Amino acid sequence: MQKVILLIMDGLGDRPIKELGNKTPLEAAHTPNLDALAARGICGMQNAIGVGQRPGSDTSHLAILGYELDKYYTGRGTIEVSGLGMDLEEGDVALRGNLGTVDDSLVTVDRRAGRIADTGPFVKDLDGLTYEGVTLHIKPGTGHRAGIILRGPGLSSRISDNDPHEVGVKVHEVHPLDGSAEAAFTAKVLNHFLNRAHEILKDHPLNEERRKEGKPPANYLLCRGAGYYKKIEKFSERYGLKACTIAGGGLYKGIGAFTGMTVLKVPGATGMANTDISAKFEAAIEALAGGFDFAFVHVKAADAFGEDGDFQGKKAFIEKIDRAAGTLLNLPHTLLVVTGDHSTPCALKKHSGDPVPLMMVGEGLVRPDHVAEFGERACARGGLGRLTGLMIMPEIINLLGLAPLIGD
Amino acid sequence: MQKVILLIMDGLGDRPIKELGNKTPLEAAHTPNLDALAARGICGMQNAIGVGQRPGSDTSHLAILGYELDKYYTGRGTIEVSGLGMDLEEGDVALRGNLGTVDDSLVTVDRRAGRIADTGPFVKDLDGLTYEGVTLHIKPGTGHRAGIILRGPGLSSRISDNDPHEVGVKVHEVHPLDGSAEAAFTAKVLNHFLNRAHEILKDHPLNEERRKEGKPPANYLLCRGAGYYKKIEKFSERYGLKACTIAGGGLYKGIGAFTGMTVLKVPGATGMANTDISAKFEAAIEALAGGFDFAFVHVKAADAFGEDGDFQGKKAFIEKIDRAAGTLLNLPHTLLVVTGDHSTPCALKKHSGDPVPLMMVGEGLVRPDHVAEFGERACARGGLGRLTGLMIMPEIINLLGLAPLIGD
Repeated sequence: MQKVILLIMDGLGDRPIKELGNKTPLEAAHTPNLDALAARGICGMQNAIGVGQRPGSDTSHLAILGYELDKYYTGRGTIEVSGLGMDLEEGDVALRGNLGTVDDSLVTVDRRAGRIADTGPFVKDLDGLTYEGVTLHIKPGTGHRAGIILRGPGLSSRISDNDPHEVGVKVHEVHPLDGSAEAAFTAKVLNHFLNRAHEILKDHPLNEERRKEGKPPANYLLCRGAGYYKKIEKFSERYGLKACTIAGGGLYKGIGAFTGMTVLKVPGATGMANTDISAKFEAAIEALAGGFDFAFVHVKAADAFGEDGDFQGKKAFIEKIDRAAGTLLNLPHTLLVVTGDHSTPCALKKHSGDPVPLMMVGEGLVRPDHVAEFGERACARGGLGRLTGLMIMPEIINLLGLAPLIGD
Repeated sequence: MQKVILLIMDGLGDRPIKELGNKTPLEAAHTPNLDALAARGICGMQNAIGVGQRPGSDTSHLAILGYELDKYYTGRGTIEVSGLGMDLEEGDVALRGNLGTVDDSLVTVDRRAGRIADTGPFVKDLDGLTYEGVTLHIKPGTGHRAGIILRGPGLSSRISDNDPHEVGVKVHEVHPLDGSAEAAFTAKVLNHFLNRAHEILKDHPLNEERRKEGKPPANYLLCRGAGYYKKIEKFSERYGLKACTIAGGGLYKGIGAFTGMTVLKVPGATGMANTDISAKFEAAIEALAGGFDFAFVHVKAADAFGEDGDFQGKKAFIEKIDRAAGTLLNLPHTLLVVTGDHSTPCALKKHSGDPVPLMMVGEGLVRPDHVAEFGERACARGGLGRLTGLMIMPEIINLLGLAPLIGD
């Protein structure tokens, strides 16, 4: 059977930039390998959610991997805690957490407690707290981060963040976002845990040490992005493909874990501009040789350059991807699918709903079109036309010859 | 913030016409300004409702303005009475009305009572009639027309027209179009009002005068297009854009009023071929300079030429639009969106479901494609691909950088 590599370059799409001769960073970049792939493949444009719809990083990936948002997406928390290796159970509410610093009036002084390197010794004293039948499960993430699960009956993810998302203001009370008893109950329980956590953390011996060292104490748990966990059909069961994830960023590992893929550890994959892209591509090729059928490879930094408005950096990073992509040119028995999750135009410095280029390359599988350049405007003339994210996995399955017959 | 002009040329699309060298009227027309805009913008094709779907003038505009038909459209009546400045309340049933002439056997002699110029003195004697808890509100429209509202509990728009839409036949009884008690009740109430109206009108002193002058009496109220009013989210609230409507035709002013836009009065805007298109474009530019964010500009007559099968007239009218469009060439900070509401092929002499060209022009906002001609076949190769009406407003909001984030 043919294998699949799905390469997603985060925030890939952009708008014409005067300083780049009215080209986008992707169009302006020197990308001989991506262009050669485009010439061999069939190209098009896709909006992960829909025309004009502006996707988050979590929703865009779920859609591209074939998961309907109304059925599978309730908030980012479930995906983030999956990425930390925490097991979710039906009915759990999961949140992203930071350890931060507040003063005696609960005003936020530092949302990351001086970018504390390890929250482990703090959060272990919070893990397992219980209140009204609900247990708090908490695990350290990278740096100041932590994953939080509320487990018990009658919970809802329709609650607000206590994280004020800025310093100099008081931490928020969590409040319900709808009129349900479940949301009110969940807000009450979480507020209780947050108060208890503050009591435990403010006098924590390690914070005494931090104070002596002149560091801000890690004395408050800031939460955001509550998600409700409903059992999700694993990617391998959904498509009959044994799948792995190769990513540096936590959210993308989370997407892999959340959809039941094996998340591979790749040395040098950082989720930042310094990432070792060649190592990621090599890891994907090895994984497919070693028994996996599908490798989801995520490369993050183009998005970050877009959010900084740094079009030269974005262009240079795309060229770095292209150099590594030489190894993808001659993969036997492999369908290579390359796209972005959304556009992050440098002029907007944020995600947008502009469509992103998409190419599918596989000898004998696709009908190569006349497009010989991997870019926004070149691909808009391609044979795939204009797709949505939810169309991509069915098309991959179809190209592999694995699509179920509808009818008789 | 960038401003928006949405220019809709009614009935714009067409089919190849042998006498025009197998070009459509738009393709055959000399349109240097529209072509220059196409060259600067991104082009595509759109079907207001969907591929192969043949839209009315009301439904096509609602869809292009982003209103889902199953949620917001129940009949043309609500839109027409909105255009007359009548305020609708939730649960109202609104109809379009004519004052017509019937003989003693209620056979229609003239559907427009000799194109009577003013129905005001007649309809004021009908306004405020009540029956079984329902009040009849009626207001004169232009010429022989009137707007009709039934207000009271338990009404339905699922009723037939009494207007037979032809002369020489008896006016119809209104009958329910479904088995509901509400439709039966509404038909009963409206039939009562129509009988009362005939009694009041047939002996009206002004009709005595008309008979003496040899004019057909305005002695019957002909109704059609019942619509049920549910509160509609205003355009400005839906999109955060302060919007105005510039149109000559009553229906299009009605679309503006129905969606809560400010309907501007523009001298010379007639909704016919003699309309002052330059005045309309100037009014749009002034409105945007004066505080509006979004100007919906409607130009009608291409549709009428299509319905007459007059392809030379349609071509000439499109050239008239193009001459006026010179003022749209260099608008600063403006996203210009140009399309039609539907095709009205001269060969069919009626609306069709053929897609219409669409272009979006705005420096730095869109990715200009290679299309340099505003025409059916040129735009079919454009970078926007093939859209539906409901995709247009989300894409406009996205291009402005105002789209809400879906996910995180």
